[in-house]
Amino acid sequence: MEKVVAGIDIGGTNTRIGLVNSKGKVLVDSNIATDKYQDVNGYISTIYNSIEILAKNPDLPAVELIGIGIGAPNANYHTGKIEKAVNLPWQDVPLAETLGKYYPGMDIKVTNDANAVAIAEMVYGNAKNLRDFVVITLGTGLGSGIVSNGELIYGHDGLAGEVGHITAVPEGRHCNCGRCGCLETYVSATGIKRTVFELLATSTGDSQLRNASFNSLTSKDIHEAALNGDPVALDAFKITGEILGRALADVVAFTSPSAIFIFGGLAEAKDMISKPAKENMEKYLINCFKNKVEILPSALGNKDAGVIGGASLIWKNLKNIQ
Amino acid sequence: MEKVVAGIDIGGTNTRIGLVNSKGKVLVDSNIATDKYQDVNGYISTIYNSIEILAKNPDLPAVELIGIGIGAPNANYHTGKIEKAVNLPWQDVPLAETLGKYYPGMDIKVTNDANAVAIAEMVYGNAKNLRDFVVITLGTGLGSGIVSNGELIYGHDGLAGEVGHITAVPEGRHCNCGRCGCLETYVSATGIKRTVFELLATSTGDSQLRNASFNSLTSKDIHEAALNGDPVALDAFKITGEILGRALADVVAFTSPSAIFIFGGLAEAKDMISKPAKENMEKYLINCFKNKVEILPSALGNKDAGVIGGASLIWKNLKNIQ
Repeated sequence: MEKVVAGIDIGGTNTRIGLVNSKGKVLVDSNIATDKYQDVNGYISTIYNSIEILAKNPDLPAVELIGIGIGAPNANYHTGKIEKAVNLPWQDVPLAETLGKYYPGMDIKVTNDANAVAIAEMVYGNAKNLRDFVVITLGTGLGSGIVSNGELIYGHDGLAGEVGHITAVPEGRHCNCGRCGCLETYVSATGIKRTVFELLATSTGDSQLRNASFNSLTSKDIHEAALNGDPVALDAFKITGEILGRALADVVAFTSPSAIFIFGGLAEAKDMISKPAKENMEKYLINCFKNKVEILPSALGNKDAGVIGGASLIWKNLKNIQ
Repeated sequence: MEKVVAGIDIGGTNTRIGLVNSKGKVLVDSNIATDKYQDVNGYISTIYNSIEILAKNPDLPAVELIGIGIGAPNANYHTGKIEKAVNLPWQDVPLAETLGKYYPGMDIKVTNDANAVAIAEMVYGNAKNLRDFVVITLGTGLGSGIVSNGELIYGHDGLAGEVGHITAVPEGRHCNCGRCGCLETYVSATGIKRTVFELLATSTGDSQLRNASFNSLTSKDIHEAALNGDPVALDAFKITGEILGRALADVVAFTSPSAIFIFGGLAEAKDMISKPAKENMEKYLINCFKNKVEILPSALGNKDAGVIGGASLIWKNLKNIQ
């Protein structure tokens, strides 16, 4: 029987569940609509049923479930809980404990989505031989996973790695977290949209983006406009990359990683964001760090990274990868 | 025979050498004038002689030297070298290797001064039971040592922990490192002096500090003036503490330490700097980190910390303290 781990990627809208083998391959997977479950116990019971159905999939050779790893917003590795989540239907969820009732004795681990991606990058991705690196995930917000001395930094409370909420611009844009000037208000799918609207307000040139409403515009639209040569979209990517680059110089000053991986929807713009990021990072780095740190794409596809990331929480320990 | 480690604290002006027992006690010590040695080999030979003289001190019971630990500016733990030092008579020094010629097979370790203090805090000081904490040293500049998962973060190149060179004020004050707006240009003995001079320029009120020249004014003078109720000095401490506090909110967002230790000359002002720092840190922390992180004084005296810090590099491993 092949040993598998259930990897679970919990998002505000959708939850994806997959059975992942030791090589990081997703053998089968399914989806649950997160936002349809106001009752968290019903939601967790559905997760259990989904895992059981997947494990009995007739197209699959017999498998043995040896652990469950979960990536979720505001998930705490130390407590196994989701704490003060803002994008989920429930506030505080003892996730590992509740799911554990269905699986007595099973190894169940929980962490936030960016940390899960960082561990997947270490176990299966482009960071296999690296002991010091950082993953930046650019989605609706900006997440981060920091690995030093070959171990993910969870912090004393299990919540470390909130690079999205360092101050990029003192007294800058309002953030959902209640502060002002957070990095993610500039560098994220939402952040680049805000930059587009600032540019539309302050400049006068033509742009196809002048036809979009704030609510309808997506970072994909901005990327497509940039590929068409739209000057506002191109400017927005340049500004976003530059602010990211200056912040990455601070990231390097903290933990001196050998590489920084950029992951998520916005990262698909590739050079359009990573080139100004790299240039500005080098500009702002102190001399001892210059020309040492690579900015690299993630090896993980956007679709599977969350599920593989969750599963990596379990496989990492079994593979004795430090 | 009591086992001892030679702890060496290399500064731009003075080098202090002490024999330190496993309990972190400095048994004997001596000094060398660093800046008198243009030839680094002569300097290292003097270090060797000093250690030998200390070990034969007639007031001391017989001792066995089992290792040498060194804290120095820009010292790289991985390579054992001092690299691109700006405050020393020599630029690049293969310190561990050269000293090792006098002591074949001896365990010799090197790191920067702030990292050495962090390890001493972990082995002998106020951080004995902490796995996640940060030490900030406030001297001429601002140094930092970051401990996560019970281990000091050296980074891929051995040079991590340059919190003094994160951007505190975009396009702010010029820094010796060549950048602008570095935290240490505001928060350090030099930084608070610059703030005093800015206040003397922008305000009109009386201040005893109006009689001091930039070159003659020390942070001790500013502290004494503040204790006398001088409004400019009091304002300077408040502003310095506030900028430190906002930066510490970023420090917490990175590695989520349970405590931050403030060490060095400027820290002797105690509440005058740590109170505004704590208040502003809490103001700028995102909700999940509020009211969790302590700002604490170091347990190490300014005089001995460097020597004990150096020795801790060796004792830490022998005590199997993770």
